Amino acid sequence: MKKPWAGRFTEKTSKTVEYFTESISFDRRLWKYDIEGSIAHAKMLGKQKIISQKDSSAIINGLKNIAGEIEIGRFRFAVELEDIHMNIEAALIKNIGDAGKKLHTARSRNDQVALDLRLYLRAETKKTIALIKNLQKTLLNAAENNIGIIMPGYTHLQRAQPVLLSHHLLAYIEMLRRDRERFEDSLKRTDVFPLGSCALAGTSLPVDRAYVAKLLGFKAIAENSIDAVSDRDFAVEFLTDAGILMMHLSRLAEELILWSTEEFSFIELPDAFTTGSSIMPQKKNPDVAELIRGKSGRIYGNMIALMTVMKGLPLAYNRDMQEDKMPVFDTVDSIKSCLTVLAQMMPQVKFMRERMHEAAGKAYSTATDIAEYLVRKGIPFRQAHEITGKIVRYCIKNKKQLGEISLAEFRNFSNVISKDIYLHLSAENSVKAKNSRGGTSPSEVKKQIKRLKRLIK
Amino acid sequence: MKKPWAGRFTEKTSKTVEYFTESISFDRRLWKYDIEGSIAHAKMLGKQKIISQKDSSAIINGLKNIAGEIEIGRFRFAVELEDIHMNIEAALIKNIGDAGKKLHTARSRNDQVALDLRLYLRAETKKTIALIKNLQKTLLNAAENNIGIIMPGYTHLQRAQPVLLSHHLLAYIEMLRRDRERFEDSLKRTDVFPLGSCALAGTSLPVDRAYVAKLLGFKAIAENSIDAVSDRDFAVEFLTDAGILMMHLSRLAEELILWSTEEFSFIELPDAFTTGSSIMPQKKNPDVAELIRGKSGRIYGNMIALMTVMKGLPLAYNRDMQEDKMPVFDTVDSIKSCLTVLAQMMPQVKFMRERMHEAAGKAYSTATDIAEYLVRKGIPFRQAHEITGKIVRYCIKNKKQLGEISLAEFRNFSNVISKDIYLHLSAENSVKAKNSRGGTSPSEVKKQIKRLKRLIK
Amino acid sequence: MKKPWAGRFTEKTSKTVEYFTESISFDRRLWKYDIEGSIAHAKMLGKQKIISQKDSSAIINGLKNIAGEIEIGRFRFAVELEDIHMNIEAALIKNIGDAGKKLHTARSRNDQVALDLRLYLRAETKKTIALIKNLQKTLLNAAENNIGIIMPGYTHLQRAQPVLLSHHLLAYIEMLRRDRERFEDSLKRTDVFPLGSCALAGTSLPVDRAYVAKLLGFKAIAENSIDAVSDRDFAVEFLTDAGILMMHLSRLAEELILWSTEEFSFIELPDAFTTGSSIMPQKKNPDVAELIRGKSGRIYGNMIALMTVMKGLPLAYNRDMQEDKMPVFDTVDSIKSCLTVLAQMMPQVKFMRERMHEAAGKAYSTATDIAEYLVRKGIPFRQAHEITGKIVRYCIKNKKQLGEISLAEFRNFSNVISKDIYLHLSAENSVKAKNSRGGTSPSEVKKQIKRLKRLIK
Amino acid sequence: MKKPWAGRFTEKTSKTVEYFTESISFDRRLWKYDIEGSIAHAKMLGKQKIISQKDSSAIINGLKNIAGEIEIGRFRFAVELEDIHMNIEAALIKNIGDAGKKLHTARSRNDQVALDLRLYLRAETKKTIALIKNLQKTLLNAAENNIGIIMPGYTHLQRAQPVLLSHHLLAYIEMLRRDRERFEDSLKRTDVFPLGSCALAGTSLPVDRAYVAKLLGFKAIAENSIDAVSDRDFAVEFLTDAGILMMHLSRLAEELILWSTEEFSFIELPDAFTTGSSIMPQKKNPDVAELIRGKSGRIYGNMIALMTVMKGLPLAYNRDMQEDKMPVFDTVDSIKSCLTVLAQMMPQVKFMRERMHEAAGKAYSTATDIAEYLVRKGIPFRQAHEITGKIVRYCIKNKKQLGEISLAEFRNFSNVISKDIYLHLSAENSVKAKNSRGGTSPSEVKKQIKRLKRLIK
Repeated sequence: MKKPWAGRFTEKTSKTVEYFTESISFDRRLWKYDIEGSIAHAKMLGKQKIISQKDSSAIINGLKNIAGEIEIGRFRFAVELEDIHMNIEAALIKNIGDAGKKLHTARSRNDQVALDLRLYLRAETKKTIALIKNLQKTLLNAAENNIGIIMPGYTHLQRAQPVLLSHHLLAYIEMLRRDRERFEDSLKRTDVFPLGSCALAGTSLPVDRAYVAKLLGFKAIAENSIDAVSDRDFAVEFLTDAGILMMHLSRLAEELILWSTEEFSFIELPDAFTTGSSIMPQKKNPDVAELIRGKSGRIYGNMIALMTVMKGLPLAYNRDMQEDKMPVFDTVDSIKSCLTVLAQMMPQVKFMRERMHEAAGKAYSTATDIAEYLVRKGIPFRQAHEITGKIVRYCIKNKKQLGEISLAEFRNFSNVISKDIYLHLSAENSVKAKNSRGGTSPSEVKKQIKRLKRLIK
Repeated sequence: MKKPWAGRFTEKTSKTVEYFTESISFDRRLWKYDIEGSIAHAKMLGKQKIISQKDSSAIINGLKNIAGEIEIGRFRFAVELEDIHMNIEAALIKNIGDAGKKLHTARSRNDQVALDLRLYLRAETKKTIALIKNLQKTLLNAAENNIGIIMPGYTHLQRAQPVLLSHHLLAYIEMLRRDRERFEDSLKRTDVFPLGSCALAGTSLPVDRAYVAKLLGFKAIAENSIDAVSDRDFAVEFLTDAGILMMHLSRLAEELILWSTEEFSFIELPDAFTTGSSIMPQKKNPDVAELIRGKSGRIYGNMIALMTVMKGLPLAYNRDMQEDKMPVFDTVDSIKSCLTVLAQMMPQVKFMRERMHEAAGKAYSTATDIAEYLVRKGIPFRQAHEITGKIVRYCIKNKKQLGEISLAEFRNFSNVISKDIYLHLSAENSVKAKNSRGGTSPSEVKKQIKRLKRLIK
Repeated sequence: MKKPWAGRFTEKTSKTVEYFTESISFDRRLWKYDIEGSIAHAKMLGKQKIISQKDSSAIINGLKNIAGEIEIGRFRFAVELEDIHMNIEAALIKNIGDAGKKLHTARSRNDQVALDLRLYLRAETKKTIALIKNLQKTLLNAAENNIGIIMPGYTHLQRAQPVLLSHHLLAYIEMLRRDRERFEDSLKRTDVFPLGSCALAGTSLPVDRAYVAKLLGFKAIAENSIDAVSDRDFAVEFLTDAGILMMHLSRLAEELILWSTEEFSFIELPDAFTTGSSIMPQKKNPDVAELIRGKSGRIYGNMIALMTVMKGLPLAYNRDMQEDKMPVFDTVDSIKSCLTVLAQMMPQVKFMRERMHEAAGKAYSTATDIAEYLVRKGIPFRQAHEITGKIVRYCIKNKKQLGEISLAEFRNFSNVISKDIYLHLSAENSVKAKNSRGGTSPSEVKKQIKRLKRLIK
Repeated sequence: MKKPWAGRFTEKTSKTVEYFTESISFDRRLWKYDIEGSIAHAKMLGKQKIISQKDSSAIINGLKNIAGEIEIGRFRFAVELEDIHMNIEAALIKNIGDAGKKLHTARSRNDQVALDLRLYLRAETKKTIALIKNLQKTLLNAAENNIGIIMPGYTHLQRAQPVLLSHHLLAYIEMLRRDRERFEDSLKRTDVFPLGSCALAGTSLPVDRAYVAKLLGFKAIAENSIDAVSDRDFAVEFLTDAGILMMHLSRLAEELILWSTEEFSFIELPDAFTTGSSIMPQKKNPDVAELIRGKSGRIYGNMIALMTVMKGLPLAYNRDMQEDKMPVFDTVDSIKSCLTVLAQMMPQVKFMRERMHEAAGKAYSTATDIAEYLVRKGIPFRQAHEITGKIVRYCIKNKKQLGEISLAEFRNFSNVISKDIYLHLSAENSVKAKNSRGGTSPSEVKKQIKRLKRLIK
């Protein structure tokens, strides 16, 4: 098959090279956007009389027919035609003849592929934002439905202070809120129309870029044709946003894995979201969470892949940039599936209220409440901290919980302590007292839930 | 030296561990922010009567004195006191006694370090934005001052079409514009006040978080205390923004290196921005550009470093997060110095007008103009492309430039060609014709310059 | 379809989860190794009387039949059966009945997948080594065939000293030699037999691990069953070796791209290994080299992906480790295709002897020869360097090449200079004089070629 | 201060550029190797009569004096002199006059810095290997001293089968064994002598490279001068080896963190290796393990940094390569401190025998033993697995452990079960039965210990 660009060439492309350089095996995924872009371009060519209205209509109909064929799986993609752009153009010419040869007027694959990828990522970014929102809702429901559950809050994975499970879940909603913001911010830079930049210099033909941009619903127009074909920031930024998202999901996954261990026993995962072992009959494994945690690596890798590709590339388009697609496609697929499966699983996670509550009350987790008690009695905090440290040491030595020592014993450490100390030693009271804005007290957490409901709906 | 947290401990910290876990050797850089945050916190403690006004004033004065000592280099930082927070607190207690022991009331190092790093990055992000703007201005000046210079535009590093040097330089201003936007977007997520989250649960003491936030000029308040101490998104995002920035600078650096080769000879670098060889007396090397290109690796590495740290971390604070500082500090230093040195060097780069112009006219770089000429004469583009390809092949075979073949020869390829073809073969006319929005014609480029002047001033 | 591990489960796996956790869509690539391993395992089970000889034979025949079916594309892989292991086992049971249920005796998927991946990577590492060798040969031929060509040697991409093109090409053979060594070194750690570790603890059944290892040709046996199922070092090491290999290929690709620019014009690439432009009829682009350079990003990304997956994973097997396969498979495919296409292209690269030679003699590239001349005349090197620097400055100012200044002019800079200086100013003589071991003189380079011929054959 | 290479320059280096390009602030760390290399080089210059014996001796003495000054901290490093090489050479010339100007004869900073870095990394690689060995010994002692302790073995962080703690610890020794091998393998490629390559082409002076190589104890000589100054493989390979090492240490650290949680309570960390909280008086945090886990990010980042630097660099030396040092130095420091602190901490970790044992016996962790029991009774494994799965489901439903159900109940599931089933239900017997090579039975583990003792001593 003759290459559309072969005019000046005397030798045919080597078969190895054809397979090495082709992108049709993966960029065919862009077909819908390629055709959408071409239709808009053809409309403009007609409107501007760069081609005749008749040719313009023929092209548009021809493209629609090709879209139909691809949709039902009847289109044959050819490696010899390198990429999605030339595959579709060649089919168009085959189907409608000479008019088809006019589609590529005032256009280069350089600006065309930039257009396709922007249309694709604009759509996928919006879908991602919707999926994040959906996961937020799921978590918000879980937070609301489990408002009474107290669990140990951890620092250094050591029990630190009792907190509400709902409060802990809301922390993930906050992370996801930032993720959404980031994707929305990057969308501004994706939603920019590159066509009309042609190879890199623009064109001498009287194109109307604003018209095509409007047809395709773009919010902005690329103002520098060299930049427009050299730029993959929007793809890199999608990958860095996705990397941070997966960083968050890997943290949630880690906790689901920890919590479903025999040792923690904070949650029970539904059978439908776990798998068994080929050898050990008793096993029930948190595979979904493990795979999510693992897929963070994949996305970090994709991010590094594209940033390495772009490092040190002179302007404008270089073929290295073809390596932008696989990391982007793989990332889109991965984050969408992770968000989806998590949103399905979370409502079915069973939180073990008693076990969590019991754990929250142990391990001297209300020691900080004693210190704050002492502060309220006038002891400087640093001293209050030290006194409480000694009380804890005493408890460890004598194998007692904080609530198990007598007032007399307490007063050995500080005589400002009186009977009301016992009001501060239970997990419930500890939680209830954390009334500072954003704190873990039920009233504060309910306020947070209310606020987030407004933001997420 | 006794640790402020040592109440419950019976053994002393191992010396190896002290050196392994300390951060004072690098987080001392945060001292100014640490003190600024502590002063605001102390004001609030006084206002809220959590401590007395007298103690509050004593603390504030004490902190100001310490700031003075550090400023003049008289403060002794101690490894045994781990970090900047405890070093300053210990000095305060030593200097003002018991009042000093009250500073850490209703605060943990977890929210304190989040505050310090946010204050630091807020300031540094703003400085970075200013430096980017400064580099943009420098490039804009260069674009304006060299408006007449025509150079070859490249794709695949092969000469593609003649473009204006100014147009090429403006492409970098566009990249930098997106960089600025990204830093500005991330600033929204950095400029969030975490204090009052304490260890992770909030506090039972009647703090006024909004008051402190206002004193410190924050635009928003962290709404979830667990998230507030677990979150390093703002640092990661700074690093990804910096990574993309360095990706851009590495491209500019690559071009400066290429252009200053003997082979290109497009520019001459000033002696003051090059260095020589220890063995080869004739050498003059573009070291500055090379180092900038190389430093992209450093920033990519810093980005991966922190993202790896955060992968799979359970909530809330974990000591791993101490590893956030070095990548952030190193990145701040690196990007600031790259932006600064580039902005100083660019105005002194001498563009070799003749050489560039000569190169722009060769290598059949106006072939696309012939194709567009044929399109205007009614030939379908794909056919026009093929005809032109054959003309180029003919030229190569006969060792001629496009302007050197006769009308008769031209007409062998297509009889729509007439004498006016010669109007389209020079680099000047090629450039002038690219009048599409964002294209390389002088009129379009001047419009771009005007627009950017408004945006950047 | 019922899961083989479903005994203890009451609910069916969710469809979303099935698709999220399946690996059959990519690990089917391991089928040959899975069957090879299972046959050896079944032989051992029979030999050890853990199962009957009859069952052992039935299994072996059954597996061979399945292999036949897969080979001709008739085997139906089912997502519900998760992975290649269960797909084959289920087919075996379906085909041969109860005997098939005995294959998985004394085995877990944990050690089975480790076996499969090791068999696969052992084979692919050997193929990679062969392909590297092949590329070395191609480069060695090019070096031998072009032994007379002198080119400018570069540092900082500035012409530094004349060198032989052959010498430059040999530098890449050295890099590839280290790559081969690295793959050979890692092969030692890949070629280790894990089966018999079962889930992680070993087995109570009387297996003979050494026997199976011998059947499969392993050089060593994993000595710790927990490590054997937790370990992916061999995969990571393959990726880091591949990363360094691609780092080298990206450097060679960069040079091919530079050398084929109009500006350098050092080489001409064959039409069969370049492609054209969809808009610019004159373009002939070094796409192959660009894609190789770009693919370095892909491999760096794969490396980071797996290392991120493995970071912080507790022992032993975790499902995250399923994410090992895609980076490995993609890397194997990428490096093999890069090595293959390069080896095909290099012999067809046309080196432009005159152009290279001319470039080698310009830009004062023999200045170091003057300095060494002065040293031989007794001038301390640092002074010789300075004198030569001044000579160069004089030449630049007066627009002369080194060979164009008179003896009198030379002697203005140092009176030790006599007529014999002119013997040291040509590129040929400069090259010839570099007789130090490993230097660029033809005699040294020929020695290197001889040595490498021995090493590579 | 005048630059030693300034002969051809007319302008002075800009101050900003001096600070931007200097490396003395970090490469001063190489001083000892720089002087060692220079002394050997000077000896050779004398021996070969390239300089006089007198000058040679003067240089050697001069260098020794400088070494002495640096050692006692009296040497003043100057940024204007860029790097360690020029700082030392300038001091030498200042101290001994003209002879000093002869040291740099037949040498370039390009091969000199390659030499220094190789000498440095050769030494540091050996130290690293020794530290790994040391950690292995510590772990081996722990394995030997705790041979009787049974713990739950995990897959997916779910209890899988009982294993010996010693067996688990030995798994890490295996990982470290591979790490040592890798460092030893890369040492072969580091221990290669580059000097004499000069700028890139070799020299016309009669140097004796083999002599200097021998003086400096190198095992091999770089055979291609262009490669010798372009190559940083040895540094990259050190970083990838270090990356894999840190991957292992991050896994061990993760387990130490998990095991010291209240929930696991498998170990107790010594006070001397933990730290407290500034707000929560009861906290005792596993900071050392957390920092080690976190530092894996740092090393991954360093690895990506250097690999990004080297991507696409044309031959030979480019200034980008100066960015090799910081990632290498930082990695050396980090891995040495991690290995050291771990080796000090491990012997003081207290393993909680009862708690581990109790955990090992629960959660149906001997279910696989039942399945293997059934296999020995003639049931096909896949069926045995299913039967056992049902037994486990029955136990869960009836809240019983496996040892708590009656023979009659057992026989409801399979009538091949007889009284001897009870011999297989305890953790002790389960462990004892895993007699396969590399398995967890005490006899096998003791064999492993013996083997490793031989290997590690």
